[in-house]
Amino acid sequence: MAGRRSDARQKMVSAARELFREQGYHATALSDVLKRSEAPRGSVYFHFPGGKSELAVEAAALHSQEQVDAIDSAAAAATSPAELVRAYLERARTNLTASDYRQGCTIAPLVIESTRDSDELDAVGGRSFETIIAALAGHFAAFGMAPDDARRLADATVAGAEGALITARALRDDAPFDAMIDVLTRSAS
Amino acid sequence: MAGRRSDARQKMVSAARELFREQGYHATALSDVLKRSEAPRGSVYFHFPGGKSELAVEAAALHSQEQVDAIDSAAAAATSPAELVRAYLERARTNLTASDYRQGCTIAPLVIESTRDSDELDAVGGRSFETIIAALAGHFAAFGMAPDDARRLADATVAGAEGALITARALRDDAPFDAMIDVLTRSAS
Repeated sequence: MAGRRSDARQKMVSAARELFREQGYHATALSDVLKRSEAPRGSVYFHFPGGKSELAVEAAALHSQEQVDAIDSAAAAATSPAELVRAYLERARTNLTASDYRQGCTIAPLVIESTRDSDELDAVGGRSFETIIAALAGHFAAFGMAPDDARRLADATVAGAEGALITARALRDDAPFDAMIDVLTRSAS
Repeated sequence: MAGRRSDARQKMVSAARELFREQGYHATALSDVLKRSEAPRGSVYFHFPGGKSELAVEAAALHSQEQVDAIDSAAAAATSPAELVRAYLERARTNLTASDYRQGCTIAPLVIESTRDSDELDAVGGRSFETIIAALAGHFAAFGMAPDDARRLADATVAGAEGALITARALRDDAPFDAMIDVLTRSAS
C-alpha cells in the first residue's frame, strides 16, 4: 500500500515535471497533471497538500538530483573539464531534440514565471541551480582547476545550457549548442 | 486623437512587456496590463483585437527592435567583437540588477510557456532571436570575422545572455554574467 502510494506520488511529480518543461508552470493545471499521470482525482491534495507549488518544488528536486547523478556519471567517464562540459551540454541538447524541441528545462519556468506568492517556490530555482553548479565545480576542481576558475566555468556551463535550451528551442535549430560547446570547451582546456 | 490613441497603444505594449519580464506570459492578465498602463478598460480589445497573444507579439517586436538598436550603438562604439560581446552582456546584466533581479528577458517566457494554441505567438520567439543574432553576427563579420565564426559567436552570445539572465536571477547573484563574459570574450578575441 505504501509502495502504491509512493508510486502514484512519483508519477505525479514526473508528469508535472514534463508539463512544466513543455508549457511552463502557470499553464499547467492540476487536472493536466492528473490526466498525464493517470492518478485518481483527489490524490493530488492527498499527496501534495500544498498543491501545485509543492509539486513544483518536488519536480525541481527531482530535476536537480537527476542532473547531479548525470554529472557524476559523466565526470567519472571524462578525462578533462572540457569533456565534462561537453557531456553536460550534449545531455541538454539530446533532451531538447528528442522531444522535437518541445521540452526545455524544469527549473527555468519556475524562475521566469515567479509571481512571488510562494516563498518556497521562489527559493527553489536558486537552490536547484546552486546544487548543479556546485556539482560541476567540484568535478572541475578535482580535474585540477583552481576553485575560482572551477566555479566560474561551472557558472558559465549551466548558464550556457539554459540559454541554448531557450534559443535553440525558439529557433528549432540546435546550432546554439554547437556554438556554446565551442566557447566553453575552449575556456575549459 | 490618432496621437493619443497610439500613445495608449504604446503604453499597453510597454506595460505588457514589463509584466512578461517579471512574471511571464500566463500569469499576466489583461487587467494587469490595463492597471499598469493606466489605460481605460475596453481599450485592450480596441487596440489589440487579438488580445494577449497580439500584445505579446508586439512586446516581442519592441524588445527585438530595442536590442538591435542597442547592438548597433554598441557596435559603433566598439573596436572588436569582444567589446561588442561585453556590451551586449553588460546591458542584459544592468537590466536585471537595476530591477533587483526581478525583470528577465521579454522573449524567453514566450518560448518556455508555449501552449501551442497560437501559431503567431509560437513563431515570435524564433523570429525575435533570429533578428538579434543576425544583428550581432553582421557586426562581428564587419569587424573581420569569417561569416560562420561570426554566426557561431552570435549564437553563443545570445544564448549566453539568456542563460545568465535565468541563473543570475535565480541565484540573485550576477556572477554568471562575469563567467559568461569571460568565456565569450576569450573566444571573440
